[in-house]
Amino acid sequence: MDLKELYLDIEKYLDKEITLQGWIRNHRKQKEFGFIDFSDGTCFKHMQLVYDNKLKDFDEIQKFHIGSAITVVGTLIKSQGSGQDYEVAVKSIKLEGDCPEDYPMQPKRHSYEFLREQAYLRPRTNVFQAVFKIRSVAAQAIHNYFQKNNYVYVHTPLLTTADCEGSDQMFKVTTLDMNKVPTKEGKADFSKDLFGKQTYITGSGQLHGETFAMAFKKIYTFGPTFRTENSNTKTHANEFWMIEPEMAFMHLDDLMNVEEEMLKSVVSEVLEKCHNELEFLDKFVQNGLIEKLEKLVSSAFVRITHHDAIKLLLESGEKFEFTPSYDDDIAKEHEKWITDHFNSPVFIYNWPKDIKAWYMKLNDDGKTVAAVDLEVPGSGELMGGSEREIDMDKLEELVKIHNVDRKQIEWYLNLRKFGGCYHSGFGMGFERLIMYLTGIENIRDVIPYPRTPGNCEY
Amino acid sequence: MDLKELYLDIEKYLDKEITLQGWIRNHRKQKEFGFIDFSDGTCFKHMQLVYDNKLKDFDEIQKFHIGSAITVVGTLIKSQGSGQDYEVAVKSIKLEGDCPEDYPMQPKRHSYEFLREQAYLRPRTNVFQAVFKIRSVAAQAIHNYFQKNNYVYVHTPLLTTADCEGSDQMFKVTTLDMNKVPTKEGKADFSKDLFGKQTYITGSGQLHGETFAMAFKKIYTFGPTFRTENSNTKTHANEFWMIEPEMAFMHLDDLMNVEEEMLKSVVSEVLEKCHNELEFLDKFVQNGLIEKLEKLVSSAFVRITHHDAIKLLLESGEKFEFTPSYDDDIAKEHEKWITDHFNSPVFIYNWPKDIKAWYMKLNDDGKTVAAVDLEVPGSGELMGGSEREIDMDKLEELVKIHNVDRKQIEWYLNLRKFGGCYHSGFGMGFERLIMYLTGIENIRDVIPYPRTPGNCEY
Repeated sequence: MDLKELYLDIEKYLDKEITLQGWIRNHRKQKEFGFIDFSDGTCFKHMQLVYDNKLKDFDEIQKFHIGSAITVVGTLIKSQGSGQDYEVAVKSIKLEGDCPEDYPMQPKRHSYEFLREQAYLRPRTNVFQAVFKIRSVAAQAIHNYFQKNNYVYVHTPLLTTADCEGSDQMFKVTTLDMNKVPTKEGKADFSKDLFGKQTYITGSGQLHGETFAMAFKKIYTFGPTFRTENSNTKTHANEFWMIEPEMAFMHLDDLMNVEEEMLKSVVSEVLEKCHNELEFLDKFVQNGLIEKLEKLVSSAFVRITHHDAIKLLLESGEKFEFTPSYDDDIAKEHEKWITDHFNSPVFIYNWPKDIKAWYMKLNDDGKTVAAVDLEVPGSGELMGGSEREIDMDKLEELVKIHNVDRKQIEWYLNLRKFGGCYHSGFGMGFERLIMYLTGIENIRDVIPYPRTPGNCEY
Repeated sequence: MDLKELYLDIEKYLDKEITLQGWIRNHRKQKEFGFIDFSDGTCFKHMQLVYDNKLKDFDEIQKFHIGSAITVVGTLIKSQGSGQDYEVAVKSIKLEGDCPEDYPMQPKRHSYEFLREQAYLRPRTNVFQAVFKIRSVAAQAIHNYFQKNNYVYVHTPLLTTADCEGSDQMFKVTTLDMNKVPTKEGKADFSKDLFGKQTYITGSGQLHGETFAMAFKKIYTFGPTFRTENSNTKTHANEFWMIEPEMAFMHLDDLMNVEEEMLKSVVSEVLEKCHNELEFLDKFVQNGLIEKLEKLVSSAFVRITHHDAIKLLLESGEKFEFTPSYDDDIAKEHEKWITDHFNSPVFIYNWPKDIKAWYMKLNDDGKTVAAVDLEVPGSGELMGGSEREIDMDKLEELVKIHNVDRKQIEWYLNLRKFGGCYHSGFGMGFERLIMYLTGIENIRDVIPYPRTPGNCEY
């Protein structure tokens, strides 16, 4: 049986014979006794296995190495020792798979750097058991929130021939032999490629998402996303997962409501389902983690315009490396000051139009767009969204200014022609959320197999 | 409010004023009255809006085109006409977005071919409202099943430098300028590429999934998958979604149990949540659809070895285009005969080793592997799985025979060294499932934006 099942109703199994299958995390040997720290990965808690020299395989069992896979039959009893309430008195242990003594995952504290090099083994450590379980539960919590609220989950395509987001940020995809690319008039001959055209992996499903919002009113995407950014920071990866909801008949105010409600719902569900994992992370990774998350659920998020945020920063008397400016983006140090100042998540909205994406709705002032970023204490920007421009004339103008190939997105523009309506959407980087939920500071440590410039191992 | 909310508790809103936002699907005009067939996409059911010439905007409203986006305020009343129980007596309608008369989605039956060319508009038609809603609900049902049963959802990487699945089936991914690939000694110089190596998009997350199964016992993946296959059939697409669960301490028998239980759970949930959608599809797409799905849920799946299946086929007296053979794969016509014969889903297991993948567990007979395909009536193969080979010597041999680059998958082989255990997994093509659930016969019509050879539009 799974340890998870056992712990869910443990009194029921007291003094009963049970069979468990999993791995030896640690092994203490005494002359007449042995103690195995056992885990099967189905829950964060381990189980102590106790065996004594009355077992005929005693000598054999004492030789079992850390990391080995075993099947154990025994009786669940109240623990004699301290440190746990229950333990299993072993009747037999079968070695399913041995593990040599040079096994890299010894029961001691390893550095994150070392563990990254052992990416295929690190999910067996406590910290990664916690992180990747939370990743799984958070993903489900996101689905739960949207499905409960009548959103349709849409699988937008990853392969695309439209480079409207700027092909310099997108990976190229091909079936041609890269060592011998066929050419025509001195250029690659994509007519020989599988799709007959230069093809990319998209960096966003938003435009396609909008087409489905015009049919289902409320939709969301949740899938892998790719950026070619050649930057080695703690928050950038070339492959990551993103959630992009899009809602018809929605203005910016309601968009903020959705973002706030969704985040609180997800954090609540993780608090409820991952208590043991969070306790561990609170103790060993980020002190105060649980308090931070509980506070988020119960606080009302602050809403402030970009203009007022800059004003606050300028009047703060703080010495910033970058001087805050009404026309500019907000630097990381500014984000930090603002979330510290309010001690709460903060929506900053109505941004200068020149620093935001071309499809965002121009406000009546002609200077700002109806865009909003959500900044959370300790992690910075978690979501970015906007109302979308639906005025066809303005959109045509924007397409020209931003050098977007009009022909490739004619279908997108047509959405405004064929029963368009005001609508809004946002994007949330899933790894940002997991970093916030776990207190882990490097994006490489919340992705099973992270891809960063120069690193595509495993 | 959403139509979905309204229908959930419709008696409560009777004679109350409500506000709805959505689209005009049809518009019948009479001299003194008008009837609008209204839908907002949040549920399959529409709502009839009735207005009369007492409204001051009567003439204006009569001009509203099909496809337009509107906000309507009115009173929910018992319907006077036939065809529906309730309707909305309009107080006012605001036109949010007009739609021209040449709108391609007129309320008549369009061919699938025509609708594929209008991929961005087709989700507004009844059939695609049904298909894509079922796609969304089925995705959630899959997550629900696995999460409920303690599986951890793992995001395996899509970018990979390991071509162990055969790079001829994988897309190449690059940041290099395809028109001017830098070379070194006559070959592409991948040291200048973002990852410093030739990189691919993977066609399976299984190998990575196994590493997580050795940590969490039970895991699943659910993500997009890519194949370069240059084949134009009703069942092939170059981009599709796949589910790949992997379970430690599991033999083939239990694997079949999981597959059967999971499929029944998903079909039950879709039957429960998508009754209106299925009724429509049953009537217009595949007669008997609901009966087929209900039968699946209540039937015990047949289990038969490949050997016995071939024997049955040979003894059937049937004239097949391809003669069944004990050493060969089972053709589509054979699949069909077998599922017709049993009138039930059928597990065919223990396949000849030479026609299956290299990582599958060799049975004691030395001739067959512990692999299983699930065939379902009307759709053929829905899942394929196997127990994995864990004998290191056999695996080393297999790697050699199948020309797999040992160095690139050393980590995978190490799983057998570091506390390995018997384990099994399967893959299910998500689109195959959706085709089965909807009765739709072409994979292009269950994917929002299908990618097939020569086709990468939108």
